[in-house]
Amino acid sequence: MPSSCNDKMYELGVAGSSIRVLFAYGQQRKAQIGADKVYDFSLGNPSVPAPAKVRQAILEVLDEPSLQLHGYTASPGAASTRAAIAASLNRRFGTSYQPDNLYLTMGAAAALDASIRAVVDPGDEVICIAPFFPEYQMWIEAAGCTSVRSMADADMQPDVDDIASRITERTRAVIVDSPNNPTGAVYPRERLERLAEALRAASERIGRTIYLIADEPYREVVYDGIEVPWIPSIYPDTIVCYSYSKSLSLPGERIGYVLVPDTMPAWREVFAAVAGAGRTLGYVCAPSLIQQVVERCVDEPTDVAAYAANRAALTEGLSKIGYEYVEPQGAFYLWMKALEPDAKRFSERAKAHELLIVPSDDFGMTGYVRIGYCVSHDTIVNSMPAFQALYDEYRA
Amino acid sequence: MPSSCNDKMYELGVAGSSIRVLFAYGQQRKAQIGADKVYDFSLGNPSVPAPAKVRQAILEVLDEPSLQLHGYTASPGAASTRAAIAASLNRRFGTSYQPDNLYLTMGAAAALDASIRAVVDPGDEVICIAPFFPEYQMWIEAAGCTSVRSMADADMQPDVDDIASRITERTRAVIVDSPNNPTGAVYPRERLERLAEALRAASERIGRTIYLIADEPYREVVYDGIEVPWIPSIYPDTIVCYSYSKSLSLPGERIGYVLVPDTMPAWREVFAAVAGAGRTLGYVCAPSLIQQVVERCVDEPTDVAAYAANRAALTEGLSKIGYEYVEPQGAFYLWMKALEPDAKRFSERAKAHELLIVPSDDFGMTGYVRIGYCVSHDTIVNSMPAFQALYDEYRA
Repeated sequence: MPSSCNDKMYELGVAGSSIRVLFAYGQQRKAQIGADKVYDFSLGNPSVPAPAKVRQAILEVLDEPSLQLHGYTASPGAASTRAAIAASLNRRFGTSYQPDNLYLTMGAAAALDASIRAVVDPGDEVICIAPFFPEYQMWIEAAGCTSVRSMADADMQPDVDDIASRITERTRAVIVDSPNNPTGAVYPRERLERLAEALRAASERIGRTIYLIADEPYREVVYDGIEVPWIPSIYPDTIVCYSYSKSLSLPGERIGYVLVPDTMPAWREVFAAVAGAGRTLGYVCAPSLIQQVVERCVDEPTDVAAYAANRAALTEGLSKIGYEYVEPQGAFYLWMKALEPDAKRFSERAKAHELLIVPSDDFGMTGYVRIGYCVSHDTIVNSMPAFQALYDEYRA
Repeated sequence: MPSSCNDKMYELGVAGSSIRVLFAYGQQRKAQIGADKVYDFSLGNPSVPAPAKVRQAILEVLDEPSLQLHGYTASPGAASTRAAIAASLNRRFGTSYQPDNLYLTMGAAAALDASIRAVVDPGDEVICIAPFFPEYQMWIEAAGCTSVRSMADADMQPDVDDIASRITERTRAVIVDSPNNPTGAVYPRERLERLAEALRAASERIGRTIYLIADEPYREVVYDGIEVPWIPSIYPDTIVCYSYSKSLSLPGERIGYVLVPDTMPAWREVFAAVAGAGRTLGYVCAPSLIQQVVERCVDEPTDVAAYAANRAALTEGLSKIGYEYVEPQGAFYLWMKALEPDAKRFSERAKAHELLIVPSDDFGMTGYVRIGYCVSHDTIVNSMPAFQALYDEYRA
């Protein structure tokens, strides 16, 4: 460990996100043998371009005076943008949110980090449902808290009894992520209602509110018309963290929000704490031009047709070969059983077939891999012989 | 204190930055009595539009495929953008930085927060030269450290002997900000060389590197051709935090960088720690479209003519009335003596004349006010009777 800097930060910087490490390997490998020879399923980078309206909105806002277009907005975001988002949510979910319920952030990562720090005290516990997005643990630990793992059931749904059994006096929040990264599961209303009930009972017992933090960047990416229940209507003590990265295909622009719903009894306090946490995290305001673009695109439908076609080709191809997986209902990930208990080794062996798939250990579970099918349709189709060869190797 | 959230975050959220509170009052007051009747010198929001090339660059990059334009970049930023910035610095300062020395951030606030957390351990001390940007203290405390204040001398220059006397075994960094916000002072080479010498000696004595963290958003905003020395060439253990907010008038777009120079002995470790700190702070990458815009505008000259004209009108007008102030050499702030020891009361009495000026207490010093002259020239000219009336009230 170097004495020249903070050890923990150094470690986190050197390790990087393991997903990004695999992605970096893929970039290198593509340069060596050709992009079409590498089947890179590592990242969650949308493969569908942003809607045409995004470009149109950028051209539109360019007519505004520079000082207004590129100037600071209020820390929680421009009032007009927050009003547009609130109105859109109210139309969709029958709610009555105001601009004051919204704090715009640089994407869901910033939204989650600020939301966690807003509600926890050092020493608190936050429950994550495994498998989960790997950075949750890091943000929870950076806030001086403990991340407590509750394993999902066989369908990758929250196991409410298990969650309830892990609640202690120090439990401050449960993070839910539906549609789920990495499994593609969508949590049904009934399961969320049971979870809400358990959290209400536990909050009363310990004498302190247990928050749900809903990480929802994939809210619009669902298939077969499945319902994504609006969680604050089921459990009022829900903080929603959203990003336009996936729905508008703007991951690099870093734009999203924290919603602290007006139906949460302590929403004013929690909202202020989110803003305070944002200050300590070095946030000033979300990027101003993109705020205005989002304001104009807030009701643009998400184009999921390409992801749906990929999903069909992938599941059909893999099941024909004999792989087992969780049927994905949303997001653009397939959660597939590894062909040996050690998913890391399985992922390494897949690499030899130019298949880049992320081992489940990084998501807090063993024995699976995540296949991100936000790729070209050709990548799916052309990768099938490689998946077949990998399978044959194990079955030989 | 609410038990519904983290007390400290709540406090920070409710308090907001005092500068922004004064600004919000101004917005309200302008709505009441008309914008031209309120002389709002509260903010550091550039009053000069972004260079025409910014608009041109946005139109140019809009021709790129959406997935590339709006996609994730590598966490430290796009390689091409970092290369352009490195090349520009190398041309200007005779250095040989590489893209790997640069970590792009959402402005200087994010750069400072990540840089502080990269080098400190909890319990460390960071020296700030008062008067200073108020958020320094908050970021230092949020990292579990103590902010130690060293008062500037009468010319608002660093008092090297005083800084040296405050160094302990736990001192990890000194933050310097030149051209300075709030005083407009520019630190001359000789003073920085003496500071470097003191830090070298102290680092050797305590057996640990003391870093300079150079906060430089105003680097290009200087008058009368005064030199802004390149600090890493004077003290290699300098981390530079930069923002394009002022030089390109893009404050709302949140784009800047951390430079960890290759001349710093431990630059690889410190750079990794900056990246690790960025992860814990919820940063993913700097906004992608604006990265590409900066890449194309990296050598655009900063238009300081309007600020220079404002400075001349303001200093001439105020000195005629009889006010005392520090002659500003850079940035767009005038540091003026309050007419009574209590600067907060002075600022309140100024409000009655529709003059919005920030009391120095917020910057860690008593008895002064900050006048941000990044306003229209008319605001300066038209505010003079109000400054006269305020003066007369005190002299009556």
